[in-house]
Amino acid sequence: MSDETATDETDLATVRMHRPRWGDPDNPGHLPDAAQALTAGGSTDRGVDPDHIPVPESTIPDAARTALTELLGADHVVVDTGERVQHTRGFSTPDLLRLRAGDVSAAPDVVVFPGSHDEVLGILALCTDHRLAAVPFTGGTSVVGGLEPERSGLDGVVCIDLRRMNRLVEVDEISRTATFEAGIRGTDAEMGLRERGFTLGHFPQSYEGAGIGGYAATRSAGQSSAGYGRFDEMVEGLVLATPRGTIELGTAPKSAAGPDLRQLVLGSEGVLGVITRVRLRIHPLPAVRVFEGWRFASFDDGARALRRLAQDGPLPTVLRLSDEVETALNLADPDRLGGESSGCLAITGFEGGPDDVRWRRAAAAALLTDCGATPLGTEPGESWRTGRFRAPYLRDPLLDAGVLVETLETVTFWSGLADLKASVTGALTDALTASGTPPLVMCHISHVYHSGASLYFTVVAPFGEDPLADWAAAKSAANAAIRAAGASITHHHAVGRDHRAAYHDEIGALGVELLNAAKRVVDPAGVCNPGILL
Amino acid sequence: MSDETATDETDLATVRMHRPRWGDPDNPGHLPDAAQALTAGGSTDRGVDPDHIPVPESTIPDAARTALTELLGADHVVVDTGERVQHTRGFSTPDLLRLRAGDVSAAPDVVVFPGSHDEVLGILALCTDHRLAAVPFTGGTSVVGGLEPERSGLDGVVCIDLRRMNRLVEVDEISRTATFEAGIRGTDAEMGLRERGFTLGHFPQSYEGAGIGGYAATRSAGQSSAGYGRFDEMVEGLVLATPRGTIELGTAPKSAAGPDLRQLVLGSEGVLGVITRVRLRIHPLPAVRVFEGWRFASFDDGARALRRLAQDGPLPTVLRLSDEVETALNLADPDRLGGESSGCLAITGFEGGPDDVRWRRAAAAALLTDCGATPLGTEPGESWRTGRFRAPYLRDPLLDAGVLVETLETVTFWSGLADLKASVTGALTDALTASGTPPLVMCHISHVYHSGASLYFTVVAPFGEDPLADWAAAKSAANAAIRAAGASITHHHAVGRDHRAAYHDEIGALGVELLNAAKRVVDPAGVCNPGILL
Repeated sequence: MSDETATDETDLATVRMHRPRWGDPDNPGHLPDAAQALTAGGSTDRGVDPDHIPVPESTIPDAARTALTELLGADHVVVDTGERVQHTRGFSTPDLLRLRAGDVSAAPDVVVFPGSHDEVLGILALCTDHRLAAVPFTGGTSVVGGLEPERSGLDGVVCIDLRRMNRLVEVDEISRTATFEAGIRGTDAEMGLRERGFTLGHFPQSYEGAGIGGYAATRSAGQSSAGYGRFDEMVEGLVLATPRGTIELGTAPKSAAGPDLRQLVLGSEGVLGVITRVRLRIHPLPAVRVFEGWRFASFDDGARALRRLAQDGPLPTVLRLSDEVETALNLADPDRLGGESSGCLAITGFEGGPDDVRWRRAAAAALLTDCGATPLGTEPGESWRTGRFRAPYLRDPLLDAGVLVETLETVTFWSGLADLKASVTGALTDALTASGTPPLVMCHISHVYHSGASLYFTVVAPFGEDPLADWAAAKSAANAAIRAAGASITHHHAVGRDHRAAYHDEIGALGVELLNAAKRVVDPAGVCNPGILL
Repeated sequence: MSDETATDETDLATVRMHRPRWGDPDNPGHLPDAAQALTAGGSTDRGVDPDHIPVPESTIPDAARTALTELLGADHVVVDTGERVQHTRGFSTPDLLRLRAGDVSAAPDVVVFPGSHDEVLGILALCTDHRLAAVPFTGGTSVVGGLEPERSGLDGVVCIDLRRMNRLVEVDEISRTATFEAGIRGTDAEMGLRERGFTLGHFPQSYEGAGIGGYAATRSAGQSSAGYGRFDEMVEGLVLATPRGTIELGTAPKSAAGPDLRQLVLGSEGVLGVITRVRLRIHPLPAVRVFEGWRFASFDDGARALRRLAQDGPLPTVLRLSDEVETALNLADPDRLGGESSGCLAITGFEGGPDDVRWRRAAAAALLTDCGATPLGTEPGESWRTGRFRAPYLRDPLLDAGVLVETLETVTFWSGLADLKASVTGALTDALTASGTPPLVMCHISHVYHSGASLYFTVVAPFGEDPLADWAAAKSAANAAIRAAGASITHHHAVGRDHRAAYHDEIGALGVELLNAAKRVVDPAGVCNPGILL
């Protein structure tokens, strides 16, 4: 198979991030031609330079600062301006708009850098004693307000940046698991495994910024989830530091010994404590990989084909389908759609051993062809693969040019997918049109399951008078449409603050009570990421 | 492939069960020649006939009985002897020995048969008001004491038999899910699906007796788990009735909306309430199925091959490996091991579409051969498949002949599997030898995962003076060996009362507190299956 390639995601170095812009500021994003058209050639405004924003006085009491310094050493307790700004909020468009406007009212009062699980336990005990909110931080790439706790009733916010806890602790080659400290960045984890001949196979769009602990705390899903699974499916064991002590889980891959408490900690977004260590499934580096493009006449046709692959197999490692709008914007050149001027682009990717890939690829091709797909060869597949982490870089120049761009996502069962897509698209379009800023709404399926699939929406609209308010109204309308359809409020972005109300609707009052009761056990003072999730 | 067969498990009718013997008493089990040797031709004693056991007076207060009758109707509130004996305890060997000795001290005080979720809510409210323990009951096949709650502080025990709640509520053919009321027996669920062209693919050894609600409450795993997954992986949604009201979960197959609360209810064994409805993944009935036997020179060789299949694929639908002792006992005729007089028998089973089965079967055969396996053809595979539900029938005639036979199981990571097998085998052998009843200890792997596998032990020993005490000592030694190895106390039998102490060791004191806190939310009076799990 001459189409196969050998390069992979681990060729990427770990990227330095500097808010509010995604990625290394020395290597900024540039808009491709198709996206330039959206800006209408307007003037650009990069917003306030965060290095020159005056930050509010730290409210942390002296006694707490002294105690933190005694615990961690002065080098690992930082109250200076720059770090606090860089740990303010996350990477949602509203987060960036606020930071570009110089608003750092949500800055933590202190950023601490523990070096061990025991130090994290010490910090949480200290936060309990001094009534300080404790926010775990790995990559800081939350897009749902997960890093902006409520301060009410507390005397300050401590951001616990785990970046020093970045070791690959152990590789069990027999069981094919690797144990990491939670502060390691996803790229570093992948590079560490690569030296041993393994991969985690977890490549979310936030890959260049996010960390392992964040993946676990938010139930991340990577672009290769069809082949390697979601992050919550990769976790075989974990260690949680709480104000009341340590919880260690994972005696076996699967067990009938009571409820699976790992699944109570995964997705808990810091409200039960800080995940300090995870044991993860690993896989041999794939010998071959092939990515291909396919054209469908319509999104519905494509969705039907993806469903058949998810239910009857064989499952590719990567499987995604863009709708007509997203396809048109991403592939402005109709020649890349096999000469057709419209339609939907699907990507299939296969990784594994040569025989395995050959069989799965051939069987999937037969099924896709049977579903009416036109093969487009490996060029669109490779183009997607090599550009797969670039989308977040486009947001900054679009915002510079006065173009609002934001994403949201959901997941439901296959039988409700088409209606969900229509109602969310309609809600976003109606809301932003009512604000005087009619949007372009794109959608793709990026994660498939036996019984359902995710929908990922990208919304682009010109700035109105108050982009923050306009987006809040649109997001609220989308949330209402998602819940009215009975779908989940998030597939992989988590709950944070932004989805809290919809999440409570989703699990019901008794479900919320269950979680609050669990939280009270491990965090009786309510200092662990308060206001997030619950 | 002339080896393929078309018959399947759904040819079995739903079997009437009559304690203490497994299966329909009109169709008893008979010992095969190999097992006859174990009985040493001793005399037989079938124990007390349960239809003639005097049961203790029901302690249920008149007011509670009246209220239950008003709620459910007199036909659905049963205090007569026969039903109460038939709902006493489960099917562990100690349970059977006690019943055979006429001990029905654990009989529930009343058996009720609700017809709807709302009636279950009503029963739980009534149990709360009248301080009665509530025990959910579907098939009643627990082997860990899950049906024997603690009565202390309560005025009686209500067994909630869900057999009237046995509807196939809905089939979503697009999403490939089916929604069942929890009281349906596994065989009836399978037959209902078969009429629609689908299968659940869940065939535990208790298949002829167990029910859907029990599968969910105990995290059951079926013999085809390699292909169809564990029961907890099949559950897309569920409805739980609690004393405080209803919890309904499952907006999507997977989600990042907080902890997965489904995984808190699955495995909760009735202590959070009664699961009344589940939405399950279903699959088209397989077009073809092939079962084959393979011989390995040693268990370690076989385990290595199973690990490669689990990690590198392709995974068969069924994959199991008996150790030398189990192989010798089950296959007394060495001709069936390819003429070799020793070794270990592995079974592979493939179900699916013709192309899929052909490819997986060929690729697995190549891998197994590469691992040193000798193919034995389809005869041992088919023999295993057709006899797969017969083992529980052998226990009764063995007990009749004064032979103790019991099973236990565990699960761990691959790197610890060999040590775990050795230490549990040693603990069982030493304990029963010390009791003067040296045992035969057999073991097989029946469920494999990427990172680990289950071990299932069968122990056979002559009756000593006190078989109950002898087995308690042996079981205690095995539990200690399992926990010393860091493995899980159960792979698919659940916790019940028998594994409670080891389970608490496994999840730690804070883990137990989390579960107790969750229980207090939904069951503030502590009436839901008290003493089970917690």
